[in-house]
Order: sequence, then C-alpha cells, then structure tokens
Amino acid sequence: MRAREIADDYPVLNLDVDVLDAARLLTQDRLPGIVLTDDAGRPHSVLPDSQVLRLLVPPYVQRDPTLAKVYDEAEADRIAARLSGRTVRQLLPAENTVDLPAVGPSATVMEIAAQMARLRSPLTVVVERERMQGVITTTRLLDHILPPP
Amino acid sequence: MRAREIADDYPVLNLDVDVLDAARLLTQDRLPGIVLTDDAGRPHSVLPDSQVLRLLVPPYVQRDPTLAKVYDEAEADRIAARLSGRTVRQLLPAENTVDLPAVGPSATVMEIAAQMARLRSPLTVVVERERMQGVITTTRLLDHILPPP
Repeated sequence: MRAREIADDYPVLNLDVDVLDAARLLTQDRLPGIVLTDDAGRPHSVLPDSQVLRLLVPPYVQRDPTLAKVYDEAEADRIAARLSGRTVRQLLPAENTVDLPAVGPSATVMEIAAQMARLRSPLTVVVERERMQGVITTTRLLDHILPPP
Repeated sequence: MRAREIADDYPVLNLDVDVLDAARLLTQDRLPGIVLTDDAGRPHSVLPDSQVLRLLVPPYVQRDPTLAKVYDEAEADRIAARLSGRTVRQLLPAENTVDLPAVGPSATVMEIAAQMARLRSPLTVVVERERMQGVITTTRLLDHILPPP
C-alpha cells in the first residue's frame, strides 16, 4: 500500500484566512489540524489543533504560560474575540519555520508512520511535483494498517 | 468559564491495554489521543494520535526514519500485525517521561489554551486531588471560546 492509495481529500486554507474562520473549520468538522497553502496553491505548513489554539494565545503568554493566571475569568473568556479580522499569516510566529509533514505518492505506510511520529503531526500531505495530491491523517492511516480484531 | 464547566467524559485506558486495541479505539471514535491511567486509576499520560502511531514503528526506525525505506511494501503493510499481544506499557519508550497535560478544575480558558499550545497536546485532563474529573479537547475548548461568526 502506498501513499497515493491512502490519500483523501481534505480542506485547505490560504495563509491569509481569518484565524477565527480557521478555528471554526476545525471545530465544525472535528479536524485534527489545518493545511495552509501559499498564494500559488502550494502546501506551506500543517498546524495541528493545538497550534491553531496557540495562535489565539497572546505571544507573551505563549512564552511564559504562568502569565495566563493574571487574566481574570471574564478577560480569559474573550481570548478569541480580540483576534477578529487577524489572519493566520499575521499570527504565525516569524521565527517558527514549521516543518511541512509531506511524503511522495509512493511512500509506504512505514515511511508515513515514521514521519508522522517524528514530527508529532496528526496529518501529512501527499505531494507530487509541488502539487498536493491529498492528505493522510493518523486515524486514516491506522484504519489501513490495523489488522482485523 | 472554568475547566470544570468544559470537561467532558472521555474513554481512559489502563497502561496494560493491548496496543492494537488502543489504536482501534482511536480510529473507531476519531479521538485525538488516548488517556492512560496507572493501576490505581490515576491519570498517567496522554498520547496524541501520532504518538500512538509511534508505538507501532520499530524503535530503530523511530530513531532514524530513513530506515523506513528498507522495508518493502508488503513488509511495511504488516507494521501493526507484528505487535499483537503487546501492551502500551511495554512499548512506551523508557527514557520518555511524557508530560501529563493536566489542569485544576478552576483553570481559566486562557490557562488551558496556553498549556495545550505549549505541550502540543490535543487534549488535557482535568484533575482534582489526583482524580480525573474529565477531559478537554482542543476542539471542545475552541467551541467554547470562539465568538459567533
């Protein structure tokens, strides 16, 4: 079994998507993460759910999570609302050169699993000549490799 | 809003669960990860999907993913089958002292979000006096903090 046989369709988002719309897509479809593309439509990065959530947390709290305690309950509840109109591109940390989890169409399940495990990524992009051919999530990969009970 | 109001029921697994049963639970219920408990029922660790997948990958391939290429397609497809009867406890890397993502029942959404982001965890356990009160996933937290469109 090869990556091309396992890859599924998956929503992709441009880097200039509104960060709250990106987060809503995750919750509506219970996705494990988002795939971001650049203006040419090439895959740019994958953000697992926890790293989309991270975009909503003020940078100084990301650096020192104990500062989260200075927010009272009402302020903390407004964590997302203050970001209305901001794009994912604006909020991605500049220093953070994110690994793009990607495999070629002929990668085996062992190669795909080893890469997802190493990058701690809930999904990987199948790419051929810079074009995205689909996405493989960890749960879909497990569907394919688990023996019958 | 506090952690105790957001926490949901969530399946927990003993460390001695068969690794393939743990993986099946993920795929059946499309869970973002598993919560492992010790023999006293206390939360021990959280494994995101990618780290459950990691348990299926031979240790020398985890250390050097390029070795995945030495497997031919048929061997790679049997990645999971060879682990039948092995437990999660047996396969957890001994050197890997996993952070347990956990918050107290009065943690605010800002504290929960900052912790999930830092630990790159798709879920956190709500714990009071060593007892698990429930689980909060990233997508459930987002449900609570996203403003209406």
